[in-house]
Amino acid sequence: MRLVVVGTGLIGSSFALAAREAGIFDEVLGVEPDEARGRRAIAAGIVDHLVPDVPPDADAVLLAVPCDLIPEWVAKLADHPGIVFDAGSVKGGVLDAVLALRGSLPSRFVPCHPIAGSEQSGPDAATPRLFAGQEIIVTPDAATAADAVARVSGWWRATGARVTHMTAAEHDETFAVTSHLPHLVAFAYLQGIDSDQLAHAAGGFRDFTRIGASEPAVWAPIFALNRHAVLAALDALQKDLERVRALIASDDRRALTELLADSRARRRGFRRP
Amino acid sequence: MRLVVVGTGLIGSSFALAAREAGIFDEVLGVEPDEARGRRAIAAGIVDHLVPDVPPDADAVLLAVPCDLIPEWVAKLADHPGIVFDAGSVKGGVLDAVLALRGSLPSRFVPCHPIAGSEQSGPDAATPRLFAGQEIIVTPDAATAADAVARVSGWWRATGARVTHMTAAEHDETFAVTSHLPHLVAFAYLQGIDSDQLAHAAGGFRDFTRIGASEPAVWAPIFALNRHAVLAALDALQKDLERVRALIASDDRRALTELLADSRARRRGFRRP
Repeated sequence: MRLVVVGTGLIGSSFALAAREAGIFDEVLGVEPDEARGRRAIAAGIVDHLVPDVPPDADAVLLAVPCDLIPEWVAKLADHPGIVFDAGSVKGGVLDAVLALRGSLPSRFVPCHPIAGSEQSGPDAATPRLFAGQEIIVTPDAATAADAVARVSGWWRATGARVTHMTAAEHDETFAVTSHLPHLVAFAYLQGIDSDQLAHAAGGFRDFTRIGASEPAVWAPIFALNRHAVLAALDALQKDLERVRALIASDDRRALTELLADSRARRRGFRRP
Repeated sequence: MRLVVVGTGLIGSSFALAAREAGIFDEVLGVEPDEARGRRAIAAGIVDHLVPDVPPDADAVLLAVPCDLIPEWVAKLADHPGIVFDAGSVKGGVLDAVLALRGSLPSRFVPCHPIAGSEQSGPDAATPRLFAGQEIIVTPDAATAADAVARVSGWWRATGARVTHMTAAEHDETFAVTSHLPHLVAFAYLQGIDSDQLAHAAGGFRDFTRIGASEPAVWAPIFALNRHAVLAALDALQKDLERVRALIASDDRRALTELLADSRARRRGFRRP
């Protein structure tokens, strides 16, 4: 079994390590335009060698590139006999772009989003444990072949992940709120921080802003391709910020305390990982 | 040497444990209106026993109560012969309230803010290592006795912390940005989260919202007493959020990527703890 990983960043490299460890693939090839990154992926034993393009005899092709580059790869590999799957954080915007390019989704393309990652990037940050205990969202279309979904799901499960199905729209609305908006806020918040303030920042700042060190080339396309849901989530946050501001400005200490207690209770409902 | 800790929450209990471990105090008494919490503080060996009020022979009194309760304690202990110090996250608003109560700051009151804490609360979460490697901000006034500042600074250093001096205004502006605003945003953000979404939240959400589980009785007074600086910091964040929104809405991918890269670089300047 031959896997081709297009993009040897954190996600592609971690999947390659985990799937090889699970004994699924005998050979892993990498497509990586960044030469230095490609050399590091070989040196770390993540890919056996680099190829300029996806060979026709690949059994599986993981598109682990920024979201905005996924549609052209899907279109280009539409007639590839292997199973093609992606790891993009946006689904609807990516699928719409594929439809715009070729009118339908290839039946052997399985849209996936592993809910795992880090502010770290590149093959040096890769680990075969990245997906262990994490969720993989699969958003199959009516055109997607069921056997392709089953095989890709099995590969993800072999990395220790669990697989959940959603529609692309459900996915994009959910992750706009739980992931994209926190990243957006962390990036925006850091715009107001200078080095004098940083010298006094501590644990709260550290955790709140960790995701604000995430890779710009990954996140700008996520915000762009999930624009509608992300801006709707930002609208809702702005309303909640205005609500908190009004309680502080009017010194309504009781209502403010109740709101904070309600938020605390919501956070305490979070039990994963 | 006899220490009285007014408030056996996370900060008061952790200081008691650390200072006792450092051999500074032979006896630690607790003032704790919450009976269950007081019993846990005794059971955990944090305080030797509880007292209904601060005895006149205490050498040191730590006011580890929510910010809004500090001024009345300072006023009440104005003529106490021991050294009184607090651990409040707001300084200016607290000192102003003391001035409003009695016209001047007691010379043996040392305003302090340990930049340490957690979303955990109470004596069960206490640890003698809480302050190790962390910063303690001291904001003495012209009226504050230098020997009292020196002694309190020595006690904090004995817990493993380092001591920095600022004016109360500098303190409040800095921590409005680096601490109070992230807490405010985390609390506000959690208002938009429901249990269906929580089921799909992962590591980014976990860290971004950790401080949104902080104690409401501590945080509502912080926002209220540092209202001016907190709302100014929120104004600045709202402007940055609008800037990011505009770049997403207009799909200015290049400028958006540059902004994210600038935020990432700022975050990478953070080296502590």
